[in-house]
Amino acid sequence: MDSFVGRSITGLPTPALLIDLDVLEANIRTMGQLAADAGIAYRPHAKSHKQPLIAYQQIAAGAVGVCCTKLSEALVMLDAGVGDLLITSPVVTPWKIALLAKRAREARIGVVVDSLRNVQALGTACADAGSRLDVLVEIDVGQKRCGVAPDKASDIAIEVDRTPGLRFAGLQGYQGLLQLDADAERRLLGAKTANAILQDAAERVRRAGLPVDTLTGGGTGTIQIDIGMGGLNELQPGSYVFMDSRYASVDWGDGPIPFACSLFVLAGVVSTPMPGRAILDAGWKAISNDGGNPVPLDVRDARFRFAGDEHCALESDGPLGLSAGDCVRLRPSHCDTTINLYDHCFAFRGGEVVACWPIPGRGKTW
Amino acid sequence: MDSFVGRSITGLPTPALLIDLDVLEANIRTMGQLAADAGIAYRPHAKSHKQPLIAYQQIAAGAVGVCCTKLSEALVMLDAGVGDLLITSPVVTPWKIALLAKRAREARIGVVVDSLRNVQALGTACADAGSRLDVLVEIDVGQKRCGVAPDKASDIAIEVDRTPGLRFAGLQGYQGLLQLDADAERRLLGAKTANAILQDAAERVRRAGLPVDTLTGGGTGTIQIDIGMGGLNELQPGSYVFMDSRYASVDWGDGPIPFACSLFVLAGVVSTPMPGRAILDAGWKAISNDGGNPVPLDVRDARFRFAGDEHCALESDGPLGLSAGDCVRLRPSHCDTTINLYDHCFAFRGGEVVACWPIPGRGKTW
Repeated sequence: MDSFVGRSITGLPTPALLIDLDVLEANIRTMGQLAADAGIAYRPHAKSHKQPLIAYQQIAAGAVGVCCTKLSEALVMLDAGVGDLLITSPVVTPWKIALLAKRAREARIGVVVDSLRNVQALGTACADAGSRLDVLVEIDVGQKRCGVAPDKASDIAIEVDRTPGLRFAGLQGYQGLLQLDADAERRLLGAKTANAILQDAAERVRRAGLPVDTLTGGGTGTIQIDIGMGGLNELQPGSYVFMDSRYASVDWGDGPIPFACSLFVLAGVVSTPMPGRAILDAGWKAISNDGGNPVPLDVRDARFRFAGDEHCALESDGPLGLSAGDCVRLRPSHCDTTINLYDHCFAFRGGEVVACWPIPGRGKTW
Repeated sequence: MDSFVGRSITGLPTPALLIDLDVLEANIRTMGQLAADAGIAYRPHAKSHKQPLIAYQQIAAGAVGVCCTKLSEALVMLDAGVGDLLITSPVVTPWKIALLAKRAREARIGVVVDSLRNVQALGTACADAGSRLDVLVEIDVGQKRCGVAPDKASDIAIEVDRTPGLRFAGLQGYQGLLQLDADAERRLLGAKTANAILQDAAERVRRAGLPVDTLTGGGTGTIQIDIGMGGLNELQPGSYVFMDSRYASVDWGDGPIPFACSLFVLAGVVSTPMPGRAILDAGWKAISNDGGNPVPLDVRDARFRFAGDEHCALESDGPLGLSAGDCVRLRPSHCDTTINLYDHCFAFRGGEVVACWPIPGRGKTW
C-alpha cells in the first residue's frame, strides 16, 4: 500500500481509512496546550487510535504516556517502545496476569483492580517474574461497569500497598456514559457527581494512611469540565484526535469545539442505478454503526442508506452527480469501532497521501 | 496462539472467536446433500467465513467454487489456491480492474457487471493482461442495490459477448433483504417475485440469441425455497456454515432448521460488582451489533447489556453464579460482521481446542 504515497487520495483502493494530518496534528497540539495551561497531566487513551505512531505524537505534545483498555493492546504499545502505560480495565486470568507481570519488567505499567483476589494474583505473578506493577483501584463513579464503591477502596488499596511487587498508585474513576451526553448542563452535573464519588474514595484511602498519587479519568466529551473542576490530576481523553459525528453533535457550552474531524472513510461508487441513487463500496465491514449511520460528505443533500454489510447507498430527490469510480468521504459516527476494522490507514495533507500507517492494535481485544 | 491447541477452550485468552467443528462440518455436509439431492450447483459465499480452509471444506463437499464480495477478498482465496471464484459486486476502478485482469491469468474468475462502460474497461484490461474473465450481468431483483432492470440485460450481455477476453456467463439476481425475513410466507413470495424478474431477464437475453449458462443467487434464508423453485442453477448461501441468532429466529416453514449454530464468542468475566451483575471483556470490538445484541449462553436468565466498546454486562434479578476469570459463550447476532473483527479463530471439539485458524480475508473490504 506504500505505492499510493505521493498520489491523490482519490486513487486509493476503496474503502480506505483516511486521516487528515493537519487536523490530527492540530488536535494533538490543542490537547497538549489545554493540559499544559491547566497544569494537569494527561494520558490519552490509545483505544481510539491503536497506533504507536500516534501515541508518540501525543507524548511529544506533552502526554505522560498512554492508556490501553486491554493487555494485548498494551503489548502493541510496549512492542513499539512506548514506555509508560496504564491498562484501564482489570486483567484477571492466570495466563494474562503472568504475561503482564513478565512484560512489566520492560516498562512502567499500571493496571486497575477492583478485587482483593486480583491484587493477590498480581502480586504473586510479579514476585515470580521479578517485576513491579503500579496498581490503581477502580472506583465505580456511576457507569455501572467495573469498579468498587468508595467504602471498599481503602481495603483494596491497603492490600496493594502491603503486597511486594505492587505499588499503590492511586484511583481511577471513569464515567463513559457522560462523554456523549449532548446536553452541556447534564454533562457538567454528571461530571461533578462522578468527581464527588472519586474524591470520597480518595479521602477514605488517605484516612487509611496511604497517599493517593494519581486520580485518573475523564474523556474528550468532558475535557473542559474535567480541567475546570480540578479533581482529576491525570486525564484520559481518546477520541479528541479524530472526533466523530457523535462528538460533533455535543453541545460544548461556551466557546467553539476545540477539536475537529480528522478521520474519514473514503468510499467508492460502484454503481449508479438511477440519477438519485449511488451504491458505494463501504458497509458495516468498513465503517461501524454502533454509533449510528455515517454522515456522507462531498455530496449535497445525500441521504445515507444501509445496503448490506459491504455496501451503502446515497440517495437524493435530485441527481447526485456521481458516476461509478467516483469517491465520497464518509464521516464515522464512532471513531473507535471504525478504526478497529482497518489494518492500516492513509495519512493525507491537502488531498495527497503522505503515508500509509499500520494499525497494529486493531483487533487486539484480549 | 497455536500453544492453546489441545487445551480446554476455557483457558483461551478472551474474547476469542470459537468454531464448533462438529457443527460446522455437519452444516457443510448438509448443504452439500441438499444441493446434490436437487441436482443444483452451489457456490457458497466466502464473505461469511473469509477463510480458505473453510472454502476448501465446502468444495470437498461438492461446491463448484466460492463467491467473494470484493476483489481483495477474492485475492485471499486465489492466494490459497482456490481456483474457481465469482466476485458478486462490480469492480470498477482502473487500479482494481487491472489487478483483477492480471490475476485472472491464474484461475477461473467470474465478476458481475451492471454497465456498458464497465464491460469495456474489463475487456481492455483483459486484452492488456492476456487473460479471460467470466462476466455475469447483475439484475436488480428487488434489493435496490447494484444491478439493472431486465430490459437492460440483453444490451449488456451482447456487449460482453462481443468483447474479446470476456465470456458472457449468465445472470446474477440476489435478494439479500429476503434472507432474514422471519415470516416463511413472505420469504416464499419474495423469492418467487425475485425469481420472476430474473427469469424475465434471462428470457430477454436468450431472445437476443445468447445462451444463459448460469443463473446465480439465493442465500441461506431462502435455500429450501430456491432449491424447490428451480429457477436458479447456482446457489450462493453463506451464513449456513455458522448460523447466527437472527437466522435462528427465522420461521423455516415445514421441518426443522437444517443448520445449527457453530460460531461463538467466548467472553471472560473481569468483574462481578454484585451477585446479579457480571462485566465481560467483549464489547462491540469483539462482537458485532448491526444485527442486534448477542445472546448469552451458559448462564440462565442472564440479560445482555452494552457496557462500552470493549465490555458487556450480564445482569439478572438473582445471583448469576459467575466469578472473575469465568468464561461465557455469546452467540453473535450476525456472523459475517463478527468474523470480520478477528484475525484468527479457534476450532474446537467437545470443549477442546483442536486448531487455530487464520482468517486472512478479515478486513479485505476493497
